[in-house]
Amino acid sequence: MMLSWLYPLEKVLHSLGMEVTNKFIVIKTQIDGKPQESDFEFKTEPFSLTVKPGSNDIIIKNLYMSIDPYQINRMKTMSSSQKASEFAVGISPGKVIDAYGVGKVIASGNPKFEKDDYVVGLISWGEYSISQGFILNKLDPMGFPLTYHVGLLGLSGLTAYSGFFEICKPKKGEKVFVSAASGSVGNLVGQYAKHFGCYVVGCAGSPNKVKLLKEKLGFDEVFNYKEETDLNSTLQRYFPNGIDIYFDNVGGEMLEAAISNMNMNGRVALCGIIAEYTNAGKRAAPDLLNVIYKRITIQGFLSGDYMSLFPEFLTTTIDHLRTGKIHVLEDVSVGLEGVPSAFVGLFRGDNVGKRIVQVSLD
Amino acid sequence: MMLSWLYPLEKVLHSLGMEVTNKFIVIKTQIDGKPQESDFEFKTEPFSLTVKPGSNDIIIKNLYMSIDPYQINRMKTMSSSQKASEFAVGISPGKVIDAYGVGKVIASGNPKFEKDDYVVGLISWGEYSISQGFILNKLDPMGFPLTYHVGLLGLSGLTAYSGFFEICKPKKGEKVFVSAASGSVGNLVGQYAKHFGCYVVGCAGSPNKVKLLKEKLGFDEVFNYKEETDLNSTLQRYFPNGIDIYFDNVGGEMLEAAISNMNMNGRVALCGIIAEYTNAGKRAAPDLLNVIYKRITIQGFLSGDYMSLFPEFLTTTIDHLRTGKIHVLEDVSVGLEGVPSAFVGLFRGDNVGKRIVQVSLD
Repeated sequence: MMLSWLYPLEKVLHSLGMEVTNKFIVIKTQIDGKPQESDFEFKTEPFSLTVKPGSNDIIIKNLYMSIDPYQINRMKTMSSSQKASEFAVGISPGKVIDAYGVGKVIASGNPKFEKDDYVVGLISWGEYSISQGFILNKLDPMGFPLTYHVGLLGLSGLTAYSGFFEICKPKKGEKVFVSAASGSVGNLVGQYAKHFGCYVVGCAGSPNKVKLLKEKLGFDEVFNYKEETDLNSTLQRYFPNGIDIYFDNVGGEMLEAAISNMNMNGRVALCGIIAEYTNAGKRAAPDLLNVIYKRITIQGFLSGDYMSLFPEFLTTTIDHLRTGKIHVLEDVSVGLEGVPSAFVGLFRGDNVGKRIVQVSLD
Repeated sequence: MMLSWLYPLEKVLHSLGMEVTNKFIVIKTQIDGKPQESDFEFKTEPFSLTVKPGSNDIIIKNLYMSIDPYQINRMKTMSSSQKASEFAVGISPGKVIDAYGVGKVIASGNPKFEKDDYVVGLISWGEYSISQGFILNKLDPMGFPLTYHVGLLGLSGLTAYSGFFEICKPKKGEKVFVSAASGSVGNLVGQYAKHFGCYVVGCAGSPNKVKLLKEKLGFDEVFNYKEETDLNSTLQRYFPNGIDIYFDNVGGEMLEAAISNMNMNGRVALCGIIAEYTNAGKRAAPDLLNVIYKRITIQGFLSGDYMSLFPEFLTTTIDHLRTGKIHVLEDVSVGLEGVPSAFVGLFRGDNVGKRIVQVSLD
């Protein structure tokens, strides 16, 4: 009796547009090597656009999705390192994949959010998200494009800002090396470092990226690491007086070469190791004698630890933006269908700046 | 005419005991692998026991010599890392080898030192030293054996103290792992950590060392790494709740295993890497994903940077000594002839505690 009564009601809700079909992306199995598009599939499920009475849920239409290399670590077979961080909760086959992004509230049972609010934080790789408010904030676009809040004014920006200023503790005039310098974080580190008064050399993986970083972003020097055969002597050439700060996004051989070229009291901010994410055999084995004799500090960090810096970061960055000091490097593609290819491409380095997928128009 | 006049004078000086033959140790060639006794030889030279008029020299009779593994790095073919530190000035074949130790002043042109003063600091691997006062201090034995000032109350002690308190920044109750725990520095780190209120596990290379560290030095647990086949699971067993602090004296596989078992915000003080000193192929390649996700800091240091802590270190350590809280672990042999064998033996781990050679009686 009940069921027969409920069924028509659902149909009615759906006809009123209160229920839709939500398309979302899942992994088929855990991914332990380089990701392929075929590792992903699309699923659809009925999705209610109304909030259950008494629930705290926030129903979100996803607009812009951040595509980040670190997600691959959550897709692997679980290891202790992944369990150690709330940012590295594993992604299971067949399940919704949460990710940073910007959306718009459709309905909310949570008093902090209202219909039509923009939100930024953990949404999901799909058309719609349902959130309990965990790592989710109301967003005031402040007149900037929404995409800025996915990258520059979001976690990528905070990662660059907190990593450079808190972990690297720069002094004016110090010599800074940034790897993956055209990536979402690297390009900002370079720009912050330049405006702070450091000498900045970056490396990237194509002539176009090199040109862009030098000519538009103001890096002092940039080299294409794919054209170099001996990274140690490359760095000697670009840093005849040594490296004071290395902002590392790649790990592997580049980290080894950087440590061999560091100065006394050098600092390495370990932000990412994309060279090692999909190839555990490529692990960096730096010369630790250098680390001891040069009193080098190597420090891993995640931007989530520096949320208290967010207001300062935002003020500084918006100020740079308004005075035209920061060049925004974005790589936006359109359509949820393109997410797997956008993600997989990160590991070929085919992005220039912050990779974002526009899932839906505002 | 002049020469024939000088010669008899030298003979007279010698007969008055103002000139002696100084026996000292040199390396035959740079040593790039494991050192052998045959890499060393003894030389003799006439040595004046008087100070040239107007000179600042201090003439020292060497009493106790510190035998330290790090010296091997100075004996290698020079690399950039070694040039980076004043403590790592290269040792050249055929030349006097400077080393930390305790001696007695025979004659001094330096107003800070007088005949019969005890001194501690850079002397040399020989019977006599001549110093210009660089890294040399007047020593008040304060009623302790002179050997204590070579190790416990000297640079080994300061290394343990500054490394543990300044680099590791311990909190009471934290879980500390120390490698080469029966070594000159490791045994003290363990004792400082215990008295500070940490849980301390050490590793060493023989059943006797294990017994000594547990029963006499108060380590909570100690294991013989030579009996373990999988260091990663060994550390999991001894630290079911993870390692907060790793005081690393060895590098290599032990560092990799320690990093895999560290807790959030873990700290690694990189003090020495004896496993890598004589075998560059054995370089540690820790899983940097752990370093990032667990926000681990790895920091190299040398005690020379913490000379400002010396008074505090001395007060604390002497207080521990007087209340019987510190057990002094020394490994003293007699005779300059034994220096090469004492040094070479360090790399087989055949020392228990601070290795010292008594060159001469006071």
